[in-house]
Amino acid sequence: MSDLLIRSANVLQVAADASQVLVLRDHDILIGGGRIESVQPAGMADQSHFRQVIDAGGLLAMPGLINTHAHVPMVIFRGLAEDVSIEKWFNDYMWPLESNLQPEDVYWGMLLGLAEMIRGGVTAVADHYFYMDRAAQAVDKAGTRALLGWAIFGSDGLEAVEKTAAFVRDYQGAAGGRIRTWMAPHAPYTCDDDFLRACVRQAEALGVGIHIHVSETMGQTEASLTKRGLTPIQVLEQTGVLEVPTILAHVIGAMPGDMAVLARKPTGIAHAPKTYLKLAMGTAPVRAFLGHGIPVGLATDGAVSNNTLDIWESLRLMAMTQKQEAGSPEVMTIPQALYLATRESAKVFGLPADLGALEPGALADLILVDLRGVHHQPLHSVSASLVYNTAASDVRTVICDGQVLMRDRQLLTLDEAEIVAQVKTSMERLAQRQPDRRIQVYNP
Amino acid sequence: MSDLLIRSANVLQVAADASQVLVLRDHDILIGGGRIESVQPAGMADQSHFRQVIDAGGLLAMPGLINTHAHVPMVIFRGLAEDVSIEKWFNDYMWPLESNLQPEDVYWGMLLGLAEMIRGGVTAVADHYFYMDRAAQAVDKAGTRALLGWAIFGSDGLEAVEKTAAFVRDYQGAAGGRIRTWMAPHAPYTCDDDFLRACVRQAEALGVGIHIHVSETMGQTEASLTKRGLTPIQVLEQTGVLEVPTILAHVIGAMPGDMAVLARKPTGIAHAPKTYLKLAMGTAPVRAFLGHGIPVGLATDGAVSNNTLDIWESLRLMAMTQKQEAGSPEVMTIPQALYLATRESAKVFGLPADLGALEPGALADLILVDLRGVHHQPLHSVSASLVYNTAASDVRTVICDGQVLMRDRQLLTLDEAEIVAQVKTSMERLAQRQPDRRIQVYNP
Repeated sequence: MSDLLIRSANVLQVAADASQVLVLRDHDILIGGGRIESVQPAGMADQSHFRQVIDAGGLLAMPGLINTHAHVPMVIFRGLAEDVSIEKWFNDYMWPLESNLQPEDVYWGMLLGLAEMIRGGVTAVADHYFYMDRAAQAVDKAGTRALLGWAIFGSDGLEAVEKTAAFVRDYQGAAGGRIRTWMAPHAPYTCDDDFLRACVRQAEALGVGIHIHVSETMGQTEASLTKRGLTPIQVLEQTGVLEVPTILAHVIGAMPGDMAVLARKPTGIAHAPKTYLKLAMGTAPVRAFLGHGIPVGLATDGAVSNNTLDIWESLRLMAMTQKQEAGSPEVMTIPQALYLATRESAKVFGLPADLGALEPGALADLILVDLRGVHHQPLHSVSASLVYNTAASDVRTVICDGQVLMRDRQLLTLDEAEIVAQVKTSMERLAQRQPDRRIQVYNP
Repeated sequence: MSDLLIRSANVLQVAADASQVLVLRDHDILIGGGRIESVQPAGMADQSHFRQVIDAGGLLAMPGLINTHAHVPMVIFRGLAEDVSIEKWFNDYMWPLESNLQPEDVYWGMLLGLAEMIRGGVTAVADHYFYMDRAAQAVDKAGTRALLGWAIFGSDGLEAVEKTAAFVRDYQGAAGGRIRTWMAPHAPYTCDDDFLRACVRQAEALGVGIHIHVSETMGQTEASLTKRGLTPIQVLEQTGVLEVPTILAHVIGAMPGDMAVLARKPTGIAHAPKTYLKLAMGTAPVRAFLGHGIPVGLATDGAVSNNTLDIWESLRLMAMTQKQEAGSPEVMTIPQALYLATRESAKVFGLPADLGALEPGALADLILVDLRGVHHQPLHSVSASLVYNTAASDVRTVICDGQVLMRDRQLLTLDEAEIVAQVKTSMERLAQRQPDRRIQVYNP
C-alpha cells in the first residue's frame, strides 16, 4: 500500500535552469512515505494500492509555496502600525506592542498565521520570532514544514545565545522531521560583534545556520559605514556569520562589493517586496543577486508591515517591482519569477534537493490550484496566470509531507473558529502601547 | 412597499474631506427606486415594507467599486502579451491581435470581464473599446453601470467620429439609465488635431465628455515636445478637448506646467498602477494631481497589461507605489486611499453626487464585504484591512441600481459557464498573430 494518489492533475514543471515552464497535462502523482514516488501519465496506477485518492481533474499541481522569512505570530498585531515611518514603526509601535507578548500569544498567533498560509498554498516557512517552542507546537499541530529561529538581541545578553541554542537542539527534527531549527540573532544593528560571534560558535557546534536581518535599507548600510567603516554585510563576514548557512532578510542596502562577498558564501536572500513598498524601503537588487548566483526566495515578512502572509502577492510584486526598477518590462520574465517562487525559494529554505519541484524523490509538499475562475479566463497562459492572476483563494487543496492539510478549501488540521476566538480574547491587551515600554530601540 | 432592506451591516463612511474613515456598526440600509433612502441604526425599519431583505450581519457595506478606465473585452486576449516592451506590446502583440476582433468577441468578452468585476465588487466601469453597441448589450444584461466610449483612431477618418457620435446618441441613458456614453478618441499620438477637434465638436453638440489616453509615459511627452514643442496635455488644451468633461487615462508623463492646465479644467485622471509597474511605465504623480485639486480615480486598464480587473489590487498598488515614489510610508494614508477609491473615483466617473458614498439620495450601488477570513484576523483595523488585505473573493454580495447582481458569491444575472464556454470556442482564432496585420502602429 502507498499513501496517496493525486489523479489527473496538470503538473507544473519549472526548468532547473529557469528557462521555461511546462505543464504536463493529465498526470498522476504517486506519494508514499512523505515523498513523491512518481509523476506519470494518468490512468496507469492501480488505485487500490493507495490509502487515499484525490481527483485533481482540471486542477494544476505545483510545489507548495515557501515563505523564506516571516514573523508569523505577529499577525496578532495586524493593522496596528499603519502609515508611519520605519523609525516610528519600530520605536512607537512594533517594539512597544511586543512588550505585551506572552507565550500563549505566540502559540495562537502562529496557528492563525499558519491557517492563513495553508489557505494560500504555503507549506513551509522560515520563521523568526519569540517563544519559538510555542511556535513549534503550532507547526506540529498544523502539519506544515518550518525552519524556526528564536529571535534574540544583543541586549538580551549572552545567556540568550545559550538559551536559544538549547531551543535549536531540543526542537531539531521535531514534528516528524518537519521542523528544523537555526540560530536567529536579530540584526547587526541590534547585536554587537561578540554576540554575533557567540551565535556563530553555537551554530557551528550544532551544525545549523543563522537567520538574520541585514542591510534592510540603504540608510542602515550608510549608518554602518559612517559608524564603523563597514557595510552590514561586511560585519557579518568579519564576525563569521557568513561561514555557516544563512538566510539574510531583505538586503535592500547592498553595496556592489557586498555582492562578491555573498557570492562566495552559503547564503540566500529572503525577499519581501510588499513590505518594501509599504514602508518605502527601496527596491532590493534581486537581478544583481541572481546574476552573482546568490539564491533569492520569496517572503512575506511579518503581517504588521506586509498585512498578509500571501506569497502569490510577493511573487507578483517581486516581478513587477524588478521590471519597474530596471525600467524594462522584458526583465524578470514569467519563467524566472516562477523559478524564484519554487526552486530558488527551496534553496534559500535550505532544502534544494527536497522541495521546489514535483519530481520523484522530492518531499510531498504540493498544492492543487484552480485556474478555472473567471479572473483566469480564457486561460491562454497558465504561467502568466500563476504570476499575475492567481489569488490565495484559488488554492483548493494543500498537501505537506504527504499529509492533506486542506481539501477543497476545508482545513483538516486546524479549527479556525477556535483560533480566531482565542486571538480575539487578547486583542485589547495586545493593542496597548506605552512608548516608553519597548523591547528594543531602533537606532541603526 | 420599498425595494430592498440591507439589515445589520457595518457601514463604511469615508469623510468628504478624506480626513478619516468611520464604520457605523449594525446599521440598516433602506433602498427604493434604485437609490439609498436611509442609513439608520438596525432594527427600526419594518421588514414587511420591503420586497427583499438581505441580512448583512457581520459584513461591511461600502460603495460599489468604480473602474475609471478599462478595455474590458480585452480579457479575451489575457496572457498573450507578456514580458515585452511597450513598443512590442502594441506593434507585435496587441494591435495584431485586435485585427482578429469581431463584434461577437466584444459581447462575450465584455460579459466575461463584467462577471470578473462583479465578483470583485466593481459596479461601474468607464470602458474604452470597439463595437461598443455590443458592449452596451452586455452591460444591459449584467446589470452594472457603465460609461462607454467607442475607441477611434485618426486613421479611421472623420466618418469614424460621426459613427461613434451616433453610438453616443443612440445609447445615452440605455439600460434604464445605467449606461452613459462619451466620445473616445484613442490618444493625441494616434489622432491628429483636426480629428480631435471634430471629436470635441461632437461632444459639445451631444453634451457629453471625452475619454482619452494621454501622456501614458514620460517618453510620449518627450516625443511630443520634440515633434511639435507641446506636451500631449497642451495638445488636448489647444484642440479644445479639455473644454468638455474628460477622463484622462494614465498621465504618467505630466510636466509641471500641465498641472496648472489640468487644475482649471473639468477633468479627472484614471490611474492603473498594476499596468504601470508591469510595463515599467513610471509612477504617475497622483499626489501632485490631488494637491492641484485634480480628481484621481482607480482603474485597471485592459487585462492584457493588467491581467486582472481587480480594483482592490489597484487600490493597494496605488497606495504602495505612491509611498515608494515619495520615499515615505507616511504619505497616501489609508483614509486618503479609501477616499480615492470611493468619492474621487465617483468624481472621475462623472457622478460625484450619485456614487462613492452610502448616503441618502445616492444611487444604490453597494457591496457587502466579508472581513471574517483568517487573512483579516484579528481585525484591529477595518480600514487597513480594506486597503491592504481585502481580496476580490471577500466580496459576498453586489448591488447595482438597487438590483442584486451577486448574492453570497452567486451571480444572479450572468451564466458564467456559458460565457466561458463561448469565449473558449474563439481562443485559437483570437490568439493568431500576423505582425504585418495590425489595426494601428505605435510610434508616438
